[in-house]
Amino acid sequence: MQITTGKGINQLRLNERIEQLSRIGRIGETGVCRLALTPEDMDGIIQVRLWMEEAGLATRIDPFGNLIGRLEGTDPTLPILMIGSHIDSQPYGGRYDGAIGVLGALEVVQCLMENGIQPSMPIEVIAFCDEEGSRFNKGLFGSRGMTGQLEEGELERQDKNGVTRCEALQAFGCSVEKFAEGVYATGSIGSYLELHIEQGPVLESLDAPVGLVTGISGPLWLTVTIKGMAGHAGSVPMAMRHDALAGSARVIAAFDDMVRADPDAPTVGTVGSLRVFPDSRNIIPEEVSFTVDLRDMEMERRNQLEARLMNVLDEICSQHGLTYSLTEDTNSEPRYCAERIQAAIRSSAEEMGLPLPELMSGPFHDALALSHVCEYGMIFVRSKDGISHHPSEYSSPEDIALGTEVLYRTIRQMCSRLPADIESSD
Amino acid sequence: MQITTGKGINQLRLNERIEQLSRIGRIGETGVCRLALTPEDMDGIIQVRLWMEEAGLATRIDPFGNLIGRLEGTDPTLPILMIGSHIDSQPYGGRYDGAIGVLGALEVVQCLMENGIQPSMPIEVIAFCDEEGSRFNKGLFGSRGMTGQLEEGELERQDKNGVTRCEALQAFGCSVEKFAEGVYATGSIGSYLELHIEQGPVLESLDAPVGLVTGISGPLWLTVTIKGMAGHAGSVPMAMRHDALAGSARVIAAFDDMVRADPDAPTVGTVGSLRVFPDSRNIIPEEVSFTVDLRDMEMERRNQLEARLMNVLDEICSQHGLTYSLTEDTNSEPRYCAERIQAAIRSSAEEMGLPLPELMSGPFHDALALSHVCEYGMIFVRSKDGISHHPSEYSSPEDIALGTEVLYRTIRQMCSRLPADIESSD
Repeated sequence: MQITTGKGINQLRLNERIEQLSRIGRIGETGVCRLALTPEDMDGIIQVRLWMEEAGLATRIDPFGNLIGRLEGTDPTLPILMIGSHIDSQPYGGRYDGAIGVLGALEVVQCLMENGIQPSMPIEVIAFCDEEGSRFNKGLFGSRGMTGQLEEGELERQDKNGVTRCEALQAFGCSVEKFAEGVYATGSIGSYLELHIEQGPVLESLDAPVGLVTGISGPLWLTVTIKGMAGHAGSVPMAMRHDALAGSARVIAAFDDMVRADPDAPTVGTVGSLRVFPDSRNIIPEEVSFTVDLRDMEMERRNQLEARLMNVLDEICSQHGLTYSLTEDTNSEPRYCAERIQAAIRSSAEEMGLPLPELMSGPFHDALALSHVCEYGMIFVRSKDGISHHPSEYSSPEDIALGTEVLYRTIRQMCSRLPADIESSD
Repeated sequence: MQITTGKGINQLRLNERIEQLSRIGRIGETGVCRLALTPEDMDGIIQVRLWMEEAGLATRIDPFGNLIGRLEGTDPTLPILMIGSHIDSQPYGGRYDGAIGVLGALEVVQCLMENGIQPSMPIEVIAFCDEEGSRFNKGLFGSRGMTGQLEEGELERQDKNGVTRCEALQAFGCSVEKFAEGVYATGSIGSYLELHIEQGPVLESLDAPVGLVTGISGPLWLTVTIKGMAGHAGSVPMAMRHDALAGSARVIAAFDDMVRADPDAPTVGTVGSLRVFPDSRNIIPEEVSFTVDLRDMEMERRNQLEARLMNVLDEICSQHGLTYSLTEDTNSEPRYCAERIQAAIRSSAEEMGLPLPELMSGPFHDALALSHVCEYGMIFVRSKDGISHHPSEYSSPEDIALGTEVLYRTIRQMCSRLPADIESSD
């Protein structure tokens, strides 16, 4: 494989910045803790803002806590080409999640300028506030804020110390009373691009440094509660039991089987959390609650699996004298990447001689919020062992540089052309 | 069915006492909280002691906190015939568990005296200290204490408030330095009988007020820990997963199936407690720990099931790329009731025209500790809906009276005969 980067991005500068940013809020050798709107987050923002200004961008922090660096285009009436990600982290996170997307975007725009390319449309490099949602237990805050998608009561959400998001924003220097002014007008953003680590093992398993994201799959989140009857583990004969955990175990095993049934489908299904009541070794479980996370790029297949799960619940509960109830906690539809942007990314990789596997994104990203107001595209960089949200998260400098180079070539293509009409997939 | 009680126990007095004792530490309408060695427990002991003395028994509280009421026999050299149970309760318990065994024993001995029967051997009515083990997380304290079966460090065990068992015993007026004197000499106890509520649904399902216990089944307690690999629920394809909960669910379902396989066996198997790490809805479970409780009256069958569980663990873990580890927390053998005492109980019920189904006891009782030093027998009274360790625990006054009458007739038979040689089943 002969990969050409040509006169492209500055790999040294990019990786130097990733290294430098990782020292802010560093934990242990390789970990990072920069929870949103904390002093560590602010130190990160100050550092990135400095680099944006050094590169010649006009910077500001909007009322939602987003850091924005702007390069004007030749035609100020054109919709913005936005590129970014986030620099806040998980409490026990790594240095690549989000950060490579912000610093990669900055590198791309800085290279455009160094190569004397002035885009037709304005370009904004953005570090969105609180993508992770770890602190206030709800993420994509900045990206939802500037696209007018905040919900009731978001400012009142508290962190573990009782600090509200409103207070945290004010301490960060943000004016929550200016939220309305901070929302971008409909149509003002033309396209959004995001470079991100994969956070999964697919690219690694394909031996590919970079991948093309076709869309963000929508998760269905359910909470299932199965009720039986408690009793002494030593005194209730098996035939008289209504054991909520034995029933739940059958449901979970059957769910896992049905999701695996088609090995060619990208469907994933997970029971990640489970609670037993009364959770005592010599009492038959009376009640078990567990979560279901089901994702697919095809809604029809996902809906079929959901219906089969309901059948399994009906069957197993009626066989074992159990009852169940369900809550639907989230039900998102898949959001597909724009064909036009996918084509530009594909041709950029082709230019470089870089194989470009296509994959869906299971995790959320800021791109999900942006997908409701403009066309979007995403590029993934290989994650070592598929690990993320952990200090051992790792993507090599070479892989990050390749991903950023693909982004650079894509942006270079896009900024010399008129953007397509905005195709909102709403 | 014609049931004769004849000139037997005083049902009114017995149930009056059960009612009166239930007011001490009462919670709600029907619940009781008399945790061991608390002021409520002491109030209960004072009340029972008063009744013992009214009946003409010589009373004392031994160094382990056991309340003992003694009736001398005609031959002071004969081993003691001991009858009892406990009056401490679960934190959210009922009024029958333990209490009917102590007050039933007192009623039996009071009737012997009222009917002018002096036994050949001494009889002791006993309320054992801390059968439940709720407060210091280890039960059968009094019965293990007076039979010399305490373990290292038992006095240092703390309750939720940091009070040690040693401190609690001292506050109760017990002299822990006199433990050695409190242990009954080998051979000094001839037989032990206990009347107890079933705490299960078997007698109710057979429409029988009273049952004969054939033995206390020995539980095998294991803790199984299955390890897989965490990962984002959205980004790890199914074929690449090592999901510790999906694997555990298969093991738990298979275990439930294998225990149920022989519908004629009294085998019971329970997974009562389970923990998931990291227990997050969008992270694939990395580690799951769960308990296994397996009981049977036949060790061979129990051992076979244990071996099959190990096979299932091996198979499922190797299929799904998981590993597992095991700890054995308890491994008790079944303790069988003495044939001689079972025969006496059977003939007593026969005299009364009372059908007497035979069943094993899944739960522990003080009888388990006594089984290591003397022959023992147990009588069960029907539990409504099989419920126990809960305020809704209920056994009817009529059923309790029938069980106590069986006990009375059994004791009357036994105390006019010489005890058999002590057959320790050790």
